Amino acid sequence: MGGWVAVAGLGPGAEGLVTPEVTAALDQATDVVGYIPYVARIAPRAGLTLHASDNRVELDRAQHALDLAAAGARVVIVSSGDPGVFAMASALFEALEVRRDRQDTDIRILPGITAMLAAAARAGAPLGHDFCAINLSDNLKPFAEVERRLRHAAQGGFAMAFYNPRSASRPHQFVEVLRILREECEPGRLVLFARAVSTPDETLTCVTLAEAEAEMADMRTVVIVGNQATRRVGRWVYTPRSVSA
Amino acid sequence: MGGWVAVAGLGPGAEGLVTPEVTAALDQATDVVGYIPYVARIAPRAGLTLHASDNRVELDRAQHALDLAAAGARVVIVSSGDPGVFAMASALFEALEVRRDRQDTDIRILPGITAMLAAAARAGAPLGHDFCAINLSDNLKPFAEVERRLRHAAQGGFAMAFYNPRSASRPHQFVEVLRILREECEPGRLVLFARAVSTPDETLTCVTLAEAEAEMADMRTVVIVGNQATRRVGRWVYTPRSVSA
Repeated sequence: MGGWVAVAGLGPGAEGLVTPEVTAALDQATDVVGYIPYVARIAPRAGLTLHASDNRVELDRAQHALDLAAAGARVVIVSSGDPGVFAMASALFEALEVRRDRQDTDIRILPGITAMLAAAARAGAPLGHDFCAINLSDNLKPFAEVERRLRHAAQGGFAMAFYNPRSASRPHQFVEVLRILREECEPGRLVLFARAVSTPDETLTCVTLAEAEAEMADMRTVVIVGNQATRRVGRWVYTPRSVSA
Repeated sequence: MGGWVAVAGLGPGAEGLVTPEVTAALDQATDVVGYIPYVARIAPRAGLTLHASDNRVELDRAQHALDLAAAGARVVIVSSGDPGVFAMASALFEALEVRRDRQDTDIRILPGITAMLAAAARAGAPLGHDFCAINLSDNLKPFAEVERRLRHAAQGGFAMAFYNPRSASRPHQFVEVLRILREECEPGRLVLFARAVSTPDETLTCVTLAEAEAEMADMRTVVIVGNQATRRVGRWVYTPRSVSA
């Protein structure tokens, strides 16, 4: 039948950041599957069925996509940003472990502009040296694990990007994150709050760690913490390429 | 005069991975500045001057771009991948620190698909949980710093992506990297060697840490080391979203 599944990254929001590869897959698709706000970004057209589902049903959504493809559909699972960064690609492979009857499915993962790199570009180059990406959501890991990673990242001299820093269901966790960072880093360390980058709602706020407040982040924010050498030049924030610079 | 500088990420190689935003900037440019192989990816046209320069002259290149823009040129500095990840964006801001007379330059950083995310997508989703990116080139930092970061990344449970793992001028360093990883990680840890992703020369090799050999990497390779939970499903390699999975 020629069914397939593509897991596509739509980037952070702007159409100019959607790759031609993703656009081509969407043009060929019979079905689009994804979280409600991401499916809302896809223009309806004849021959295309949009399947929007709620958050936290990633495995169901992935199995649904595999079933549609087995019946001959050309399915795009849409993620914001990059599908391989705290998004749907891992969920699809988790589903594939459970559904071994679907392991011959024609699957492609189509990369996208992930939020931290879009945010970094808007601010300058705060991730211009070694860095790490940490998902602060504790839906899928205990907070002790988050804390362990924060301390190793800080002690290792990495810049850090935090996804899902704060939500209504766990407003106090990011307070704890800032407390841990203040134990590990100097007060002048630069912290960037980048919200809804590349959309009309975009805001960028760069403060020192001493000035940072948990309320500066929400679920549409990526937070970037520089390394010890990260600094301002004019209106920009950047991390030098050299350790000794 | 309307001169400007855009630092643009061309992605890993395939045209389908160049964002429309970057394509539009190139269409408007009067000058393209960059490392020889990246400038070679830009189609010549009337009204566009291509300035190709050698490796390791990043600061000169950045200053040249600032000077051209000051004279009214519309300059695109091209990087492969994403310009903010071990590429030209930081070099431009370093140049701007030196050339304070150029700090009013109209600058934009245009993100691109960085090599580790293109490689991850081809292999599955090995960076589907917390991860870090480390530049193994020791041109700009001592190897002791690389070692310190490797150990913190491993002990923190991060997956890792290595840029510039190995070059002709320092063939033995990656041997050391593998030795350190073998001290920190179990022998069955999955290691992906992704070379020239999205180009006709693309190769992907996934082995265990016990099987990994330094010769599997060169300067066109991105190396991804999974975390403890990274595993295979069918022909894919992925890292589950949950720590306890």
